[in-house]
Amino acid sequence: MPSVTGKITWTKKDLLGLEYLSKEEIELILYTAESFKEVTTRRIKKVPALRGKTVVNLFYEPSTRPRTSFELAAKRLSADVVNIEIEASSVKKGETLIDTGRNIEALKIDIIVVRHNCSGAPNILARSVKSSVVNAGDGWHEHPTQALLDMFTLKSKLGRLEGLNVSIIGDIAHSRVARSNIWGLTKLGAKVTVCAPKMLIPEGIEKMGVKVTSDINEALSGADAINVLRMQFERDTDGAFPTRMEYFKQYGITKERLAGCKPDIVVMHPGPINRGIEMSSDVADGKNSVILEQVTNGIAVRMAVLYLVGLVKEGAR
Amino acid sequence: MPSVTGKITWTKKDLLGLEYLSKEEIELILYTAESFKEVTTRRIKKVPALRGKTVVNLFYEPSTRPRTSFELAAKRLSADVVNIEIEASSVKKGETLIDTGRNIEALKIDIIVVRHNCSGAPNILARSVKSSVVNAGDGWHEHPTQALLDMFTLKSKLGRLEGLNVSIIGDIAHSRVARSNIWGLTKLGAKVTVCAPKMLIPEGIEKMGVKVTSDINEALSGADAINVLRMQFERDTDGAFPTRMEYFKQYGITKERLAGCKPDIVVMHPGPINRGIEMSSDVADGKNSVILEQVTNGIAVRMAVLYLVGLVKEGAR
Amino acid sequence: MPSVTGKITWTKKDLLGLEYLSKEEIELILYTAESFKEVTTRRIKKVPALRGKTVVNLFYEPSTRPRTSFELAAKRLSADVVNIEIEASSVKKGETLIDTGRNIEALKIDIIVVRHNCSGAPNILARSVKSSVVNAGDGWHEHPTQALLDMFTLKSKLGRLEGLNVSIIGDIAHSRVARSNIWGLTKLGAKVTVCAPKMLIPEGIEKMGVKVTSDINEALSGADAINVLRMQFERDTDGAFPTRMEYFKQYGITKERLAGCKPDIVVMHPGPINRGIEMSSDVADGKNSVILEQVTNGIAVRMAVLYLVGLVKEGAR
Repeated sequence: MPSVTGKITWTKKDLLGLEYLSKEEIELILYTAESFKEVTTRRIKKVPALRGKTVVNLFYEPSTRPRTSFELAAKRLSADVVNIEIEASSVKKGETLIDTGRNIEALKIDIIVVRHNCSGAPNILARSVKSSVVNAGDGWHEHPTQALLDMFTLKSKLGRLEGLNVSIIGDIAHSRVARSNIWGLTKLGAKVTVCAPKMLIPEGIEKMGVKVTSDINEALSGADAINVLRMQFERDTDGAFPTRMEYFKQYGITKERLAGCKPDIVVMHPGPINRGIEMSSDVADGKNSVILEQVTNGIAVRMAVLYLVGLVKEGAR
Repeated sequence: MPSVTGKITWTKKDLLGLEYLSKEEIELILYTAESFKEVTTRRIKKVPALRGKTVVNLFYEPSTRPRTSFELAAKRLSADVVNIEIEASSVKKGETLIDTGRNIEALKIDIIVVRHNCSGAPNILARSVKSSVVNAGDGWHEHPTQALLDMFTLKSKLGRLEGLNVSIIGDIAHSRVARSNIWGLTKLGAKVTVCAPKMLIPEGIEKMGVKVTSDINEALSGADAINVLRMQFERDTDGAFPTRMEYFKQYGITKERLAGCKPDIVVMHPGPINRGIEMSSDVADGKNSVILEQVTNGIAVRMAVLYLVGLVKEGAR
Repeated sequence: MPSVTGKITWTKKDLLGLEYLSKEEIELILYTAESFKEVTTRRIKKVPALRGKTVVNLFYEPSTRPRTSFELAAKRLSADVVNIEIEASSVKKGETLIDTGRNIEALKIDIIVVRHNCSGAPNILARSVKSSVVNAGDGWHEHPTQALLDMFTLKSKLGRLEGLNVSIIGDIAHSRVARSNIWGLTKLGAKVTVCAPKMLIPEGIEKMGVKVTSDINEALSGADAINVLRMQFERDTDGAFPTRMEYFKQYGITKERLAGCKPDIVVMHPGPINRGIEMSSDVADGKNSVILEQVTNGIAVRMAVLYLVGLVKEGAR
């Protein structure tokens, strides 16, 4: 029974962020994901773990990749899945998030996977419904399953997380991926450095227990792994952003820059990659890159999360 | 076998409207829904009743809630479901409803659930294809499964429908929900009052066997239940509508207005609610409200409908 | 075991076009489709052939009909299906086709069904991933499952393909349906004539082994079957196209024109029909028309294709 590592049993109704989980709970998810990873390599990639349960993907941001990953994870657990996409533009004349949540709960949905452009929306939803809520990314707040799959991948490659030097490079200020990784990695004993141009580093980030630098060489030197964030230049309305060319020159990960790093440094990226901006193609497709393994592991990690919250004792709801 | 109450067996290929059903057929659907309601409370909320059957949700109006409810109902019966959304704008250059229907029939689809902005479209479709057709709302004509779930909810709360005083409040003129409720409730022996500003009462409605009033107090007094319709102020292009504020003042259901009613009056709304327009939040969330139970019952009622038309003898098709 | 006709076993990872298949491979698909056609007539229209396998419908062109047909085919084989629609407009700022493909492969998808506005896109995708790739239409290149279902239908009606006279009528220049039919029919020994206004006949088409004419009477005379293509007048930006009226007058298939043909001439159309443009309604719905049978056969043929590529030995991937 994968929900027991000998130490603890999963009791939380929801997965809202890594901020709210203990070290042991994170380890339990990663441990559970191991068994599901094995399932995805079988000829019949399916287990009846959540048969007769229903999962709703409630997406307030259109996002094919995470929706697909969650949908596959749920289907491989034999759950029924319904996708609901709500355009931001239609929210105003529509009902509130709480009303939507209560209506979904009334449909006897076991798990709501929610992606929302407002930070904290999944927390509000979770308090309003008995259904389990899984955060698939909220504003600049958290994206816990992405961080969990990053950590799962890292542990698979390097055998441990404790004591690792992990540098997160890119737009830290607007990144829920960065925040969730920082919470998770520091809880599991990794040493985290964040690296970005000054304007993309949020004030007070060092209070999260990370080292801060704007010097890419400092971030790379001694790193066991780097997590390179997607730059979203579409944000650049006021010209304050560096240009794409400038960014690549100063922060882009190239073969040359990797040459000075640990030879088995792990290169991660949450995808989709802007080739030639965050990193060069030879790095993205190179021997240090685990970017496609991250995608594969995303299914196993999401299966683990859906499984754990889906089977939590009804009493906890 | 839920299709038999001792009285009759279901023989109709389609569910197009409550106008076309006998009292006994409506009772059979409500009776069948009872057993499916029990299924939705199980840990494994699924029965193999329609395994190997295929349901198409053919929606000419985008509408997440009813589509989701039908999709879940079909999946919980183990049917395969395919969603087809056709934008009104693309209909013109596309094929006719009949051609679309015949093509869907040629795909060996057992049941077509259709929502269409034109009154009577499901009837045309039903005549053109051997597949069963379930009306999920057509123009201002009928929305039979909504009325059935309203009646199911009412019967669950008050133990009977016969002799009940039910007031339908709101935009009667443009409401398929009102029309289907009137057909169903009067057939089952309830006394129906409709209440709206004069301009929102269709001419000749009293011929359907209902009492008509524009006085909210008259509608509330002695009512066992009220069904409060959604106001669609987006219709108001010519300024003839009352304003939102004015409407709420004259017709909005408030705690104060309910104070003068039967203490156990049942408050229904097809959703989504405009809080502060059709009713105040304390009423929507109050002890008389069964609005979320309606959502839950919607699944059971739709499972019953899909089950009955889905298993009708092939000869009837 | 339907993958063996006594002659050959299926070994190809992908179905990219009929150009790339041998006569025997095409025959194997048609033979396999026979058994699946029988499945779609059962009360439980489902077989467990691809249980635990995953199919992604990756559509770069919105197209309800083929998506629905492939989705149903996959579900009736008990595969899990995920739909991904990518708007052409979002491709520019998104990732490349190869990156998208590798990401889908990383999700452990067995089969990618791809429709793309660029000719050759499925070939590129197939070379980039281990997943099987099925071409659901690419630019003006090929639409192999459409041609296979046309051939399947023809064989069902006339008992053979060899020696048949088949005329393809309409916009040959911009038709992937025409190209796939020409490859398939000529390989199986049919004699193909293409007929269109001169501007809609691509240069050098006769090198594909077809007779070319702009005279509709020549195309109809002696034909055992005609395949009438959909005219897409929305292409007409420069006024070079014939008008709808003019086209119908010169090339439209009418009862009168059919009167001079073989009495049991088979009339096909890939749909959706422009009634009164490519053909009159009495022909579309008449006794020679097999248009709806084509739709039905489309499911069986697509089940056969998904089954064959889905069960190809892992080593071939």
